[in-house]
Amino acid sequence: MDATMKVALLSFLMHFWSSAECSNPHPLDPLTPSEINLVQTIVQKAYPTSNTTNHNLIFNYVGLDEPDKLEILSWQSSNPKTKPKPSSPPPRRAFVIGRFQKQSHEIIVDLSKKSIVSTKVYQGNGYPPLTLGEIEVATQLPLSYEPFKKSLSKRGLNVSEVQCVDFTFGWFGEAETRRIVKIKCHYRNGTANFYARPVEGVEMLVDFDDMKIVGYNDRYVVPLPKAEGTEYRASKLKPPSAPKLKQDDGPGFTIDDHTVRRVKNKGDGGDDEGYGGEVVDGYDSRAGPIISLASYYDLQKKKHRPVLYKGFISELFVPYQDPTEEWYDKTFFDSGEYGLGHGEITRFSQQSSLQPFTDCPSNASFIDAYYASSDGTPVKIPNAFCIFQKYAGGIMWRHTETAIPNQMITESRLEETLVVRTVSTLANYDYITDWEFKRSGSIKSVVGLTGILALKAANYTNTDEIKKDIYGTLVADNTIGVNHDHFFTYYLDLDVDGVDNSFVKSNLETVRVKDGSIPRKSYWRVVSETAKTEGDARIKLGLKPSELVVVNPNKRTKQGNKIGYRLLPGPMAQPLSLSDDFPQIRGAFTNYDVWVSPYNKSEKWVAGSYVDRSRGDDTLAVWSERDRKIENKDIVLWYTMGFHHIPCQEDFPVMPTLSGGFELRPTNFFESNPVLKTT
Amino acid sequence: MDATMKVALLSFLMHFWSSAECSNPHPLDPLTPSEINLVQTIVQKAYPTSNTTNHNLIFNYVGLDEPDKLEILSWQSSNPKTKPKPSSPPPRRAFVIGRFQKQSHEIIVDLSKKSIVSTKVYQGNGYPPLTLGEIEVATQLPLSYEPFKKSLSKRGLNVSEVQCVDFTFGWFGEAETRRIVKIKCHYRNGTANFYARPVEGVEMLVDFDDMKIVGYNDRYVVPLPKAEGTEYRASKLKPPSAPKLKQDDGPGFTIDDHTVRRVKNKGDGGDDEGYGGEVVDGYDSRAGPIISLASYYDLQKKKHRPVLYKGFISELFVPYQDPTEEWYDKTFFDSGEYGLGHGEITRFSQQSSLQPFTDCPSNASFIDAYYASSDGTPVKIPNAFCIFQKYAGGIMWRHTETAIPNQMITESRLEETLVVRTVSTLANYDYITDWEFKRSGSIKSVVGLTGILALKAANYTNTDEIKKDIYGTLVADNTIGVNHDHFFTYYLDLDVDGVDNSFVKSNLETVRVKDGSIPRKSYWRVVSETAKTEGDARIKLGLKPSELVVVNPNKRTKQGNKIGYRLLPGPMAQPLSLSDDFPQIRGAFTNYDVWVSPYNKSEKWVAGSYVDRSRGDDTLAVWSERDRKIENKDIVLWYTMGFHHIPCQEDFPVMPTLSGGFELRPTNFFESNPVLKTT
Repeated sequence: MDATMKVALLSFLMHFWSSAECSNPHPLDPLTPSEINLVQTIVQKAYPTSNTTNHNLIFNYVGLDEPDKLEILSWQSSNPKTKPKPSSPPPRRAFVIGRFQKQSHEIIVDLSKKSIVSTKVYQGNGYPPLTLGEIEVATQLPLSYEPFKKSLSKRGLNVSEVQCVDFTFGWFGEAETRRIVKIKCHYRNGTANFYARPVEGVEMLVDFDDMKIVGYNDRYVVPLPKAEGTEYRASKLKPPSAPKLKQDDGPGFTIDDHTVRRVKNKGDGGDDEGYGGEVVDGYDSRAGPIISLASYYDLQKKKHRPVLYKGFISELFVPYQDPTEEWYDKTFFDSGEYGLGHGEITRFSQQSSLQPFTDCPSNASFIDAYYASSDGTPVKIPNAFCIFQKYAGGIMWRHTETAIPNQMITESRLEETLVVRTVSTLANYDYITDWEFKRSGSIKSVVGLTGILALKAANYTNTDEIKKDIYGTLVADNTIGVNHDHFFTYYLDLDVDGVDNSFVKSNLETVRVKDGSIPRKSYWRVVSETAKTEGDARIKLGLKPSELVVVNPNKRTKQGNKIGYRLLPGPMAQPLSLSDDFPQIRGAFTNYDVWVSPYNKSEKWVAGSYVDRSRGDDTLAVWSERDRKIENKDIVLWYTMGFHHIPCQEDFPVMPTLSGGFELRPTNFFESNPVLKTT
Repeated sequence: MDATMKVALLSFLMHFWSSAECSNPHPLDPLTPSEINLVQTIVQKAYPTSNTTNHNLIFNYVGLDEPDKLEILSWQSSNPKTKPKPSSPPPRRAFVIGRFQKQSHEIIVDLSKKSIVSTKVYQGNGYPPLTLGEIEVATQLPLSYEPFKKSLSKRGLNVSEVQCVDFTFGWFGEAETRRIVKIKCHYRNGTANFYARPVEGVEMLVDFDDMKIVGYNDRYVVPLPKAEGTEYRASKLKPPSAPKLKQDDGPGFTIDDHTVRRVKNKGDGGDDEGYGGEVVDGYDSRAGPIISLASYYDLQKKKHRPVLYKGFISELFVPYQDPTEEWYDKTFFDSGEYGLGHGEITRFSQQSSLQPFTDCPSNASFIDAYYASSDGTPVKIPNAFCIFQKYAGGIMWRHTETAIPNQMITESRLEETLVVRTVSTLANYDYITDWEFKRSGSIKSVVGLTGILALKAANYTNTDEIKKDIYGTLVADNTIGVNHDHFFTYYLDLDVDGVDNSFVKSNLETVRVKDGSIPRKSYWRVVSETAKTEGDARIKLGLKPSELVVVNPNKRTKQGNKIGYRLLPGPMAQPLSLSDDFPQIRGAFTNYDVWVSPYNKSEKWVAGSYVDRSRGDDTLAVWSERDRKIENKDIVLWYTMGFHHIPCQEDFPVMPTLSGGFELRPTNFFESNPVLKTT
């Protein structure tokens, strides 16, 4: 295939690249079909087949026997500019693991010489991968196995609706092993989602070398879960259907003053409520963007269900780490000292903050904002917000099912996200703040750090000249990028399906199996703990595994689970300053990554109301000392996302964006996947 | 604005939403310009201005004085369906913090009554936010300050090119404070990036209440960094320019067999080498996708520089956490026992694995793959890979500069990423694997977990009936989603700018300031440690703050920094099984999140070559015990990304995708931002 053809092919928006045989494959290209055929012929000749299928060699693994790395590198560097590729790449070889007469054979085939180069019988523990062919035979065995048929009769089930699944059996200390695989069965009868209908209590062991059932167990009977509610194929789902994902006649949202609502496509029918969420974009000179009253329109319950009463960055603490006289005092609180809502954006004139097509994609809508200048005059920030639907090629959910006879199912849904973006420029730094609202109910907040480093001049032009600490990185001649942190502390007033909520730590704890009932020695379980007071809810992330969930203790799902949203944290960076150091006293709200407090209208600014030259006497750390009750109350979650920043030369003269984000994800908030019916 | 108008406006691809005055703003809408004007009038009347500007009230903060939350919620719920909004929302009020006669005044203005409701003089510590107006005046003060002019003369600098910047001063234990802000100055003269040219050693203190310089310090002279190389405006950059981001005549890459290259737009000129990277997509029935020989075409150095010799998921360990007889043995090693490269995708027929438009966006190209079936016959997986350019609306880098007189600069570049995607379906689960290649040189690998949970049948339909642990979540009637983990262990053979590399832990360590030279008590510094042997490079993430960097110790940047790539880890979940439990012995490679080993062709599969029923005697944990030398060697980084999964009802019947990814990011690999010139 020459270059011209490639361009022609690729100039279509989509094409199917035909994997034609190539006479000169790249030495790392996978085996071609004709190479695989050649391997098959050569190996089958050497390991003669018998009439009993089970005794044929099974090709458990066939892959490229990769040339030595140095061979590849030397081939690559010898003729880097040569096109077509140089004539003598390393020889093509295949590596085969074949199961034959209950042994694992390792066979290397030279594809140019068309011969076997070496063979070896593996003598160690363990077996090669199961093949799909073996699995296909093994999972059919139960269907004609009398004890299993009896188990089905006992349960009133029909063998023609049974779907069996193989499970590798592991190893639990046995001195001798056979090539055993466990088989358990499921029931279709009205659904493609047979995984949802396990015939529990029944299991079989299959010896894969003999391809026979060698163990059987029918220990107990529990109800077969019903087929209803398990289907995921769009064609089989019942109304109410969700609106189509693809918006063909304009954006999928409306903006009414500052209220953003998702809308449905024309022709979707039903009521005209916004779908998938409604949110108010507030704006404040200190906080920048404020998300309020974010709710989710629940198609099943036919109502807006509240999620986030208010969310914003309450403080952005940026302490620098250079202790010299001119630099030690650089410990900025960008929100309280400057304000994320005007920053430098509009210092001298009314300028647009967000640039169409470069700051926001072409499908973005824009909203202006206003702040009061020094003398009280309103100043307009045109395009302070942009709002757009992001189609990033992510997959919202999918499943491929090939196990059902005569059916091939692939259901897949591309992700679409509603993004509310602002940029706050604080002198040299530019902070991009995206609030993302997913159809699945997740709310993400992603910050991007870009702009220009705080730079210090110095005598040095090369690190060799540096004899003492420079507290940063020499990023250019005479230029040091100084070490620093960024702590984004979020105010998250979650109102999960109502105002009164509780904060639950679902801790994962190791349990030791002591009674020897099974050969396994341990597992983990979930021990949930509801925080009673503020003291119970101060958390340093990473110390122990837990899921942190804000629940509504007054409502439960049909199954009885607590309705909740959980925090999936983003990048973590805990403060390294001494806790009695002055900047850290002022920034003591970063002593924990997560705090919970009862809602209090006056507790909005985590570093205090008057932050410039503050003394830390009005921070969350002080408020929280009252250890107030937070169970089944209107509560606020404070979460800090942190970055330690050691500059590098790539950050000069402008930094490529470094991003991090956290997610608030519905957790038993819905009765089932809320986007199952979205197409 | 009625609904029809809104739709009309929004049907354009882009529009500017005019923030018209609204007679009935939402109670949480920010203050409108006319409201701000009204506040100004009312407050200025109450706090009479004088002729001396400094004595006028400064509007340090003007924001919405938010109605009580219960008022909002009661207003919202009283008439949820009423449109237009109900007639009596809570009263609109503004909150003002005004600095007046060296005091901070808190003023609440009722906007309907057009009067001040309350005033209070703040008595506590700290000061309100600086205003842009104050900053504008303060940063001009040095320009006519004689000592500063002398300092400039001493350095041969011209006052007309000086650009001063304000820095809040913090608090370091002083008993009394004034409203002091520090001013430091920078030099333009040939660049808009004055931050890169600090006039180091000179600083001033300004009293913001008196608006006077009250302190001056010129302590030392160091060279002014040069203007060259600091510019970021596209219009000012010199050739060679990078190709345009926007590809107007087809995809921005070519596929030559399995080699993917970025290409330049027509008309960009220069040589026809691929730009921004070249990569070979391998494929293997066990590993699934394999990235090989990923290199970056460096525009400055005019050559391909190697980064990643090989990267793939070496094992995917999925232990379930149900200790009952039928479930304890479910501890899967999906790569070694089944193979990520065929999985269930093509069990019964040749089927396409990736669905155009739903699994991959409309601009995707596809590549087929082949594996050998049980009997050695090649089986085609049409569309096993898709490759596309992702335009997700992210910002590659940006900066807004408003401080330069008579100039307004905003430079911003949208991100574009080349994505190589595969999906591996392992029975119920679907794993989406994206390898992302960014123009900035970053390589990300993102996995998405979707598909169907492993489900267990049970007697329960409501959690109230559950009296003992069910080892999971009741996700539907009679249906338990069983607790489990996913550990993705990556093989990452980085060849950073050459084969021989070292592994460096850049630890962040707190330093206590003991000599009292500054009032600050601590800072952090970077202490780098090069791992000599395998034992030095076993790391549990989260225990201490470090940057983990693979460097080429044989090459340095012009500035003398070590050329490297660093690991930005993704979601972390460490195993909770006992280390002597059999599944964990087999999965001992998850005992650490990061390991480094010398390259060894036979050490490719982290769980061993024969994983089914393996005994853990051929894992990375065993290989690593030899404690081999890894300094300035060809090394492999093994990294595990983990998820603990407590199922929730949303995961039924099909799971919304849960994603996580890590990044390999250039760190002093380039002399400066490699995408500075990309437009």
